[in-house]
Amino acid sequence: MNYSLIVYFIGRLMRIEAILLSLPLVVSMLFKENAGVFAFAVVMAFAFIMGQALMLIFKPEDKTIYAREGFVMVALSWLVFSSIGALPFVISGDIPHYVDAFFETVSGFTTTGASILEDVEAMSKGMLFWRSFTHWVGGMGILVFVVALLPGVSDRSIHILKAEMPGPIMGKLVPKLKDTAKLLYLIYIILTVLEIILLLCGGMSVFDSLVHSFGTAGTGGFGIKADSLASYSPYSQWVITLFMLVFGLNFNVYYFVLFRKFKEAGKVNEAWVFLSIVLISTITITLNIMPIGEYSGFGEALRHGAFQVATVVSTTGYATANFDAWPALSKGILLLLMFMGSCANSTAGGLKVSRVIILFKSMRSEVRKLLHPRSVTSERYEGKPLDKSTISSVKTYFAFYIMIIFIGFLVVSCDTWTAGSGFNSFETNFSAVVACFNNIGPGFAGVGPWENFAGYNYFTKIILSFMMLLGRLEIFPIILFFAPATWKHSKNKKMK
Amino acid sequence: MNYSLIVYFIGRLMRIEAILLSLPLVVSMLFKENAGVFAFAVVMAFAFIMGQALMLIFKPEDKTIYAREGFVMVALSWLVFSSIGALPFVISGDIPHYVDAFFETVSGFTTTGASILEDVEAMSKGMLFWRSFTHWVGGMGILVFVVALLPGVSDRSIHILKAEMPGPIMGKLVPKLKDTAKLLYLIYIILTVLEIILLLCGGMSVFDSLVHSFGTAGTGGFGIKADSLASYSPYSQWVITLFMLVFGLNFNVYYFVLFRKFKEAGKVNEAWVFLSIVLISTITITLNIMPIGEYSGFGEALRHGAFQVATVVSTTGYATANFDAWPALSKGILLLLMFMGSCANSTAGGLKVSRVIILFKSMRSEVRKLLHPRSVTSERYEGKPLDKSTISSVKTYFAFYIMIIFIGFLVVSCDTWTAGSGFNSFETNFSAVVACFNNIGPGFAGVGPWENFAGYNYFTKIILSFMMLLGRLEIFPIILFFAPATWKHSKNKKMK
Repeated sequence: MNYSLIVYFIGRLMRIEAILLSLPLVVSMLFKENAGVFAFAVVMAFAFIMGQALMLIFKPEDKTIYAREGFVMVALSWLVFSSIGALPFVISGDIPHYVDAFFETVSGFTTTGASILEDVEAMSKGMLFWRSFTHWVGGMGILVFVVALLPGVSDRSIHILKAEMPGPIMGKLVPKLKDTAKLLYLIYIILTVLEIILLLCGGMSVFDSLVHSFGTAGTGGFGIKADSLASYSPYSQWVITLFMLVFGLNFNVYYFVLFRKFKEAGKVNEAWVFLSIVLISTITITLNIMPIGEYSGFGEALRHGAFQVATVVSTTGYATANFDAWPALSKGILLLLMFMGSCANSTAGGLKVSRVIILFKSMRSEVRKLLHPRSVTSERYEGKPLDKSTISSVKTYFAFYIMIIFIGFLVVSCDTWTAGSGFNSFETNFSAVVACFNNIGPGFAGVGPWENFAGYNYFTKIILSFMMLLGRLEIFPIILFFAPATWKHSKNKKMK
Repeated sequence: MNYSLIVYFIGRLMRIEAILLSLPLVVSMLFKENAGVFAFAVVMAFAFIMGQALMLIFKPEDKTIYAREGFVMVALSWLVFSSIGALPFVISGDIPHYVDAFFETVSGFTTTGASILEDVEAMSKGMLFWRSFTHWVGGMGILVFVVALLPGVSDRSIHILKAEMPGPIMGKLVPKLKDTAKLLYLIYIILTVLEIILLLCGGMSVFDSLVHSFGTAGTGGFGIKADSLASYSPYSQWVITLFMLVFGLNFNVYYFVLFRKFKEAGKVNEAWVFLSIVLISTITITLNIMPIGEYSGFGEALRHGAFQVATVVSTTGYATANFDAWPALSKGILLLLMFMGSCANSTAGGLKVSRVIILFKSMRSEVRKLLHPRSVTSERYEGKPLDKSTISSVKTYFAFYIMIIFIGFLVVSCDTWTAGSGFNSFETNFSAVVACFNNIGPGFAGVGPWENFAGYNYFTKIILSFMMLLGRLEIFPIILFFAPATWKHSKNKKMK
């Protein structure tokens, strides 16, 4: 392990975060929130000076990033960003306890949107802005950001992008890694600005448009009202529904559109499967919730149905209706959408549509193999034959994915034993784990869309924070970070 | 597809079931239940005559069982047994509706133990006996029974045993298949008789000892009281706890013990992992349920903890306590045990301990591969190296397993939409599917141990019946039975 490279890298990250913190600092100044200005300024200064110092003291001789360092750097970048990003909340007093602030910040950067705030409307504007801005930063990936921004990143750093970008297959859009990262950010910024403009057109205030667009773009979901987006206009709700789906689509589509390759854009299978599932789910839920009589007619039921499908499938986590009170079928559909998530190469979480497709294809080929043991059939995906190693790694990922949910569920279930706090409900604990691990935010029952995670004890909050990180970084960086073997000296030092 | 062979085979099955029905007929006679005597006699006569007729009319020229016929025969044997086995309930009037009777009988043969009876104590003795006897027949597998009993079964029929025996690796204990089947039945009978004797020693009546031993041996779980086994003596409860675990162990252990190969018996890894998990779960649950104050002390809490762990992990489904009212952690542990189930080569359902071990081993090797991409490590299991195809098929099985639970959960969630019947609860529907698919019986909430499945509509009951069959036959026979490709003519006719 190249320790000096890693510490040097941490220094770099801290400097970057210092720069990011200047934005909420400006917001706090504009709203004349002294506590906020002080908190952001202190943390900015601390992060900048510490970062500069670390970079000066630890100058690595060898700057090559191998697989092992890559995974550790990915895990570290998210831990460092979250640990420092939590400080302003504590210093300003908006969130007094550090574990709560850490949970909230991890939830922000991982674009989960699960909150421990019992009264979000009591928060200062600067803090609300920072909270939502972490979604935007985390959405595209902290290291994609670093790669796009910094000089001296070689194409060998694909390890770190691979480890951070969601989805089973990392496709470089253009030959140079740095250019791919820049291109992704360009698309990301264009779409975010588009949403801000459309929300402003609907009469939403500048501040509200900004934070909601940040939350949508990163598929995060932190709201700024107790009822999330329920009190905004139907127009705003529809715009956000649209953009949640936009950010859940495979970004390759936008790349093709940007370069006027419309034919290729229409051939991204995953996008079609994703949109079909969204359509079928929306119609089913709309018809299912109409008879409960809470919505005035088909139009309103459709709006709430579409919004809730989009928010869950894109793993955003906004809400316009308390879907926890919906019929069992609608809740069941939403639960399965939580597991599935959106497309690979999007900002969303979850298992990813492409993995689900590959799983079903491998299941079909297994049945075929049983019927025709001697024949050789191969499945195709996105126009290319699916090779065995992709199928195998998707199945392994799925095993990890389910086992982590099971283990997480078991640990979170311990919450009620210690002290009197927390929830004694299977539905609450199970959906809390699913919602955190898939970076959605709200679950059902005790952690439903009108509820929050404040009731869990601090130990559980830390566990759930790591569930979010496991989900956002697609498991392996976090597991490797905590695996003792990663930190052992290896004879085979120059491995890739 | 060799149709005449299959119809001939159905005839044979019907004749066998006719013989099996003579036992409950005798019970009905002893208890002077005229409706029962009539029902069993009619169905016996029908099954015997029909079976004889089919065997005479369809005499197959080629008696070789290829893979495809093997799977179809396995699926058919369970469907035929259940369809005919349900008739006595309807004819005697004990269960008026055929779908209810079918659900109950499938639940019996698949050793699930989920019941639609709202008042089990109102049933006649003959029907209660038949219900529990189906557990015993289904526990070891209908075709293992056929293979053991009938002449003219060649070693090539290993297909059908493979398809029916639970677990990832089918080991022939002795070179000849028929001898293996006989040996398994010998062990099965010895253990069942042992349990009957021990229960009789504790003062349980002959009838009660018989039905409870049948239910334990098959890991079924149909009780004959409204509170399952709660009102029996602690001694009886401990005996049944012990035997539920005994029948959940890998039968290879008993084979080794029977042939005095004690060293080999002690080397079955799966058994040790299984017993360790049982021990840890029992202790945790005992400590977790003591503070709720319902049990008089450590002894009583331990008895109920151990019983409920054993009943769930062995997928039996008896109960001595309403575990649905237990703390979240205890329920969480029980839910995960439901998924895991017991050992391969036992009468229990679930994913099987061996599959869980193999999954975790493959996960560990994946992490190793990420750290040392160039090194080749291979995992070992039960003293032998784990080959890639076993790992791959376990991962595929796991994908099927989880996807079927998800899809089943979605379909069962539709229950509340149609008519006013059924349950509108995530916990009820989810645990109902898990409990049926893993052949346990009771779940949580609306289908908890003191509840029953009567409230679901007929469509849902049929779906749940197929979930039980999918679980008991380890998925593939049922999927292939309904796959159109299975029934298509194939050029490659003589495939194995």
